Amino acid sequence: MDATSSVISYLAARQCSSQWKAFLRSTAGELADKLAPAELSTFMRRVGNRFARELPLPACATLDEIQLAMSETWTRLDWGWVEISDENDHLGLCHYCSPLAVALGSESLAWGASFLEGVYQQWFEQLGASARLRVSLIAGAVEPSTIQLRLGAPVAG
Amino acid sequence: MDATSSVISYLAARQCSSQWKAFLRSTAGELADKLAPAELSTFMRRVGNRFARELPLPACATLDEIQLAMSETWTRLDWGWVEISDENDHLGLCHYCSPLAVALGSESLAWGASFLEGVYQQWFEQLGASARLRVSLIAGAVEPSTIQLRLGAPVAG
Amino acid sequence: MDATSSVISYLAARQCSSQWKAFLRSTAGELADKLAPAELSTFMRRVGNRFARELPLPACATLDEIQLAMSETWTRLDWGWVEISDENDHLGLCHYCSPLAVALGSESLAWGASFLEGVYQQWFEQLGASARLRVSLIAGAVEPSTIQLRLGAPVAG
Amino acid sequence: MDATSSVISYLAARQCSSQWKAFLRSTAGELADKLAPAELSTFMRRVGNRFARELPLPACATLDEIQLAMSETWTRLDWGWVEISDENDHLGLCHYCSPLAVALGSESLAWGASFLEGVYQQWFEQLGASARLRVSLIAGAVEPSTIQLRLGAPVAG
Repeated sequence: MDATSSVISYLAARQCSSQWKAFLRSTAGELADKLAPAELSTFMRRVGNRFARELPLPACATLDEIQLAMSETWTRLDWGWVEISDENDHLGLCHYCSPLAVALGSESLAWGASFLEGVYQQWFEQLGASARLRVSLIAGAVEPSTIQLRLGAPVAG
Repeated sequence: MDATSSVISYLAARQCSSQWKAFLRSTAGELADKLAPAELSTFMRRVGNRFARELPLPACATLDEIQLAMSETWTRLDWGWVEISDENDHLGLCHYCSPLAVALGSESLAWGASFLEGVYQQWFEQLGASARLRVSLIAGAVEPSTIQLRLGAPVAG
Repeated sequence: MDATSSVISYLAARQCSSQWKAFLRSTAGELADKLAPAELSTFMRRVGNRFARELPLPACATLDEIQLAMSETWTRLDWGWVEISDENDHLGLCHYCSPLAVALGSESLAWGASFLEGVYQQWFEQLGASARLRVSLIAGAVEPSTIQLRLGAPVAG
Repeated sequence: MDATSSVISYLAARQCSSQWKAFLRSTAGELADKLAPAELSTFMRRVGNRFARELPLPACATLDEIQLAMSETWTRLDWGWVEISDENDHLGLCHYCSPLAVALGSESLAWGASFLEGVYQQWFEQLGASARLRVSLIAGAVEPSTIQLRLGAPVAG
């Protein structure tokens, strides 16, 4: 690892509160043993929905205000921040510096990141987005320090 | 509330890392919706088993050494400490200042505290205790700032 | 120590970020070696003035609003909270759960608590209090978990 | 800023406990007002000496063991880590991820980093280094995320 990678890796590991790291990893391990992969994602989306209802967004008029309001909530909890881009037929969401990978273990990130699907889905519904629009992780763009999602019409499966 | 209660209540609330409080409460809420009460306790005991395997105890020769080794692990993570007493036919365990009640919500403490059953069960087995001996919560003695358990022959049910 | 004292003592010790405990104690020790007692108090009052200018209060109309605004700032930083009482010819301030005693060492609390004199003095001036009114520690009521101050006409010395 | 810089900048800012950031910046500001530049460095070196006496190193036989023992102390406190290289006529020390720049403000880093001179000087003396050898900051190599020092014969001034 070069120095920049070492610095990021050190800081990211320390970002996750040591009070909960072993507890969260053990919980993730037990969930992964107990539930099938599709169930894991559903479970984490529901946890995200609850989280977003517990920490609702204030009213926002513009995309900039939405990005700011969401990032303020995330930063206050030391969960990084989000950048939102208008991609015409959908919104792109890029979440930086979430502590999920360190907390749950990188082997659990694929399903653990569905927590963010649930949070953003619920927050956009609070802001008046049609429930027809879905927030979904972008396959191949879920990494420890950046997790990408999209809000748009469901992709035909 | 008198001043002492206010001080304890303030410090206890702040003890639980704000990074994870809303995440943990949402996870606890979702688990409680999904699983039956007996399943919740079993789930948390297994989480505790994993936690104790991830953070194993060093070898200990006396009860004092056991209490010290366990408390050092807990204190390092800001999970309080434990006092162990020899009650002839069983050991009494009193765990002080765990962040469980604040993290999971006090309505989830009854089953959430089974996490500690799982941790202590696994730790005592590491130390050579017969697997016939069980660690169990003491009904009526599970409170936010002190959680009492016993290690002994299973109580006939 | 009884159980309540142990709980408070544990939580208070853990409240002060371990990242800075040894650094702050060493700084306090070095200041105490370098400066005379009166200079130490003056120094800490000035540090408090700066702190309050960096974290100014919002406008407040009533004593309840002042207490709330000050306590919100303190709680956000995990510095406890303040209760303000109207004592006719002065205001009584009781600051609970500051991390000062653990951070600086209890032997430094007598002068270290002057930091709070400086913060409250500057905050009350921001709110329009006459600069003739002074915030001062109440001799004999400066303890680790509660520090009492008054705002009023200077006591003739 | 590109994404990597944003990530480092975010994580570094969050690394410094918010409980002490405003307090430490105010203390640094007040010290800088009160003392001349040379006095500031001397003051911080003495603070570092005290810190190292309070957190002494265990015995070490090799440079690798020294690097490990020092880094364990630093990492436990979330103060980053150190890499030591043997440069024939001196040792090179590179300290990564200290929270000093965020805590004291980058305008105070030039003198604040003398804290590390004091710590390493005292630690190397504990290990038996001749007091004739001096630890000193390397001019031009004191940056927020990496601070470089050397241990060797004093450079003729």
